[in-house]
Amino acid sequence: MTRFLDACYRRPTDATPVWFMRQAGRYQPEYRALRARYDLLTLLRTPELAVQVTRLPKALGVDALILFADILLPLEPLGLGLHFVPGEGPVLEHPLRTVDTILGLRPFPVEEALGFVLETVRGVRAVESDLPLIGFAGAPFTLASYAIEGGGSRHYTHTKRLLYTHPHAWDHLMQVLTDITAAYLRAQVRAGAQAVQVFDSWVGALSPRTYRRAVLPHLQRLFARLADLGVPRIYFSTGTAGLLPDLQALDAEVIGVDWRVDLGRAWDLVGGAERVAIQGNLDPLALFAPPEVLAAEVRAVLDQAAGRPGHIFNLGHGILPATDPDQVRRVVDWVHAATAS
Amino acid sequence: MTRFLDACYRRPTDATPVWFMRQAGRYQPEYRALRARYDLLTLLRTPELAVQVTRLPKALGVDALILFADILLPLEPLGLGLHFVPGEGPVLEHPLRTVDTILGLRPFPVEEALGFVLETVRGVRAVESDLPLIGFAGAPFTLASYAIEGGGSRHYTHTKRLLYTHPHAWDHLMQVLTDITAAYLRAQVRAGAQAVQVFDSWVGALSPRTYRRAVLPHLQRLFARLADLGVPRIYFSTGTAGLLPDLQALDAEVIGVDWRVDLGRAWDLVGGAERVAIQGNLDPLALFAPPEVLAAEVRAVLDQAAGRPGHIFNLGHGILPATDPDQVRRVVDWVHAATAS
Repeated sequence: MTRFLDACYRRPTDATPVWFMRQAGRYQPEYRALRARYDLLTLLRTPELAVQVTRLPKALGVDALILFADILLPLEPLGLGLHFVPGEGPVLEHPLRTVDTILGLRPFPVEEALGFVLETVRGVRAVESDLPLIGFAGAPFTLASYAIEGGGSRHYTHTKRLLYTHPHAWDHLMQVLTDITAAYLRAQVRAGAQAVQVFDSWVGALSPRTYRRAVLPHLQRLFARLADLGVPRIYFSTGTAGLLPDLQALDAEVIGVDWRVDLGRAWDLVGGAERVAIQGNLDPLALFAPPEVLAAEVRAVLDQAAGRPGHIFNLGHGILPATDPDQVRRVVDWVHAATAS
Repeated sequence: MTRFLDACYRRPTDATPVWFMRQAGRYQPEYRALRARYDLLTLLRTPELAVQVTRLPKALGVDALILFADILLPLEPLGLGLHFVPGEGPVLEHPLRTVDTILGLRPFPVEEALGFVLETVRGVRAVESDLPLIGFAGAPFTLASYAIEGGGSRHYTHTKRLLYTHPHAWDHLMQVLTDITAAYLRAQVRAGAQAVQVFDSWVGALSPRTYRRAVLPHLQRLFARLADLGVPRIYFSTGTAGLLPDLQALDAEVIGVDWRVDLGRAWDLVGGAERVAIQGNLDPLALFAPPEVLAAEVRAVLDQAAGRPGHIFNLGHGILPATDPDQVRRVVDWVHAATAS
C-alpha cells in the first residue's frame, strides 16, 4: 500500500513503484467488453461501472490505481457541451470564443455537478484496501485550451490569440478554472483520493516566457490551495523539456515528465532528488517493441533514476489503445525485479 | 548580401539578420493569386513560377531567401506517390510498410529526378543579386516518418515500431535517405545555393536515447558529407528542447530551435556562441498578437541573444497561412532597428 506514497515523499521503498497513465481503460479486453455495452460518457457517469474500470489494472500488478474519469468532465457543467466523437476524441459543442462569454464564467459547486466522480472515489475506497487511489484533474491551461479550441488542436491559434490579445479575459478564465480545479481536487481527497495528479498535457505548446507569465502563477495558486490536504501533488506535462527549470517555482511533491528528455537530466532541471520526486518516462510506443527491446528501454529509464529514492516509474504519456496488456505486465514485473531491495 | 552569411559564421554584423521559415508562400496575397491559377505541385515543379515565389518575401525586407520547394519532393522519385490534399496536407499513396519494400530502396540520381528544383536555384541566382539563397531538404528521420506513416502523424506508431522491431531495415532506410539528401543538397549548392538547412521537423517525437541511437549517427554522416561545400549548414528541429545537449555532437554552423525553449538557454545547451550560431525562435502565433505585444515578444528573443554575434532571427517553425504580412514586415523592421550597430 505504501510503496507509491513513500516514493512520492522521496522515502526509501522496497522497490520502485509503477503505474501507467490511462491504465484504466482502452487497451484492456475487460474494458473493451464494457465499452461494447456502454458509451464512454455512460461509463464515466455511472459510479458502479467507473469503480470497476478503475480497479481493472490491479491484475497487472501496478502499485497505484488512478480514478477512471476524464479531464474534460468539468467543462460540461460550465455549459460547453461535452461529447466524445469516436475516432476523433472529445468535442465541445460551445467553445469559448468571445471575451463576454469568458468574463461571464463563474465556478460551479463541484459536489453537485461532479458528484458522480466523488461517488466513484468513495466506491473504490470502500472495496480497495491494497492499492492507493490517485485522483486527478486537468490543469487550467490544458482545460482552457480545450474550452477555447473546442477540441484537440495543432497550433492553439484561438487560445494564443486570446492570451495575447485579451490578457484580462485570459486571466479571468484561468482563475475560474483554477478555482474549479482546486475545489474538485479537494473534494476528491475528501472523498478518499490519496494523491492528486494535475494533467497539463498541452502546455508544451507555449514558450517559457508565456508559460511564466500566463500559466505558472495560476498553477502556483492551485498547488498552494492543495497544500494542506496532506496528500502528494503530482504535476504532469508533455513537450515541456524547455520549461523544466521554471518548475522549480512550483510547490509540488512530484513532477511527471514525458520521454522527450532524459529522466536524470529532467530531475536535475526541476531541482534534483533533494527537492522533488520524479515520475516517468518510458515512451508509450516502447510497449510496441519486441520484449528484449522493451526491457532495454525500461532498464534505461531505471538507470537514469540511479537508485535515488523518489522515482515513480510511469510512461511519458497515456497508454495507447492498441497496447498489448502482456507487455504492460512485463514492464511492471521488470521494474519491481530490477529495483527490489 | 553578407549579413545572413556572416551571422551563420558568427562574424559581427551591422544588424541581426532575419528571415522566416515558410516565408515563400501561403500567407502572401501574391502567392495566393498564383495558387488560384496553379495547383501546389505545378507551382513547385515549374522553375519559372518557383523562382517568382522564392523572391516574393524580398518585399518584406528579409535578409535571405529560401528556395520555394517542399521537403517531401524526394519521396516522389522513390516511388511513394506524393499528393497534397487541400486542408489535410501531404499524403503518400504508397507508404513504406514492409521490410522487403524498405530493403529494396536505392538512391536515385537527383539531378534527373529533381532537376526542376536545381533549375529553380539557378533561376533565382541568375536574377537575384541582393540576397543569399538558402537551399534545403528534409532530414532523414522526418522524411522516413512521412514515408512510413504516409502523411502527418500523431504518435508515429509505424515509424517507431519499425525502428524498434527491424533496426536493420530502419538503418537501411536512413542510409538511403541520407545518401539522397546529401546528393540533393550538394546539387543545390552546385546550382548556386549559398547555405543549406536540414529540416528535422518531427524528430521531437523521439526520446534522447532513441535519437542518439537511431538518428544522430545518420545526421553526423549527412553533415560530414556537406562539410567541403563551403556554405553554412543549418540543422533545424522542433520539440527538441530535451535533445539539445546531444546536438553538440553534430558538426553544423547553425542550430535552429523552436519557441519551446528560451533561446539563450538553448544556445548554451548546444555549446554556446563559441561553438555554433543559433537561429530562432519567435512563436509563429506571436504574429497574431497586437503589435505592442508582438514587439515585446520580439524584444524578448533579441534579449536572449544579448548582442552575441551569431544570432539569426527567425520563427520557431513555419509562418502560418493566416498570418498578416504587415505583422511580418513589422518584425523585420524592429529586429533591424533594435540591433543596428
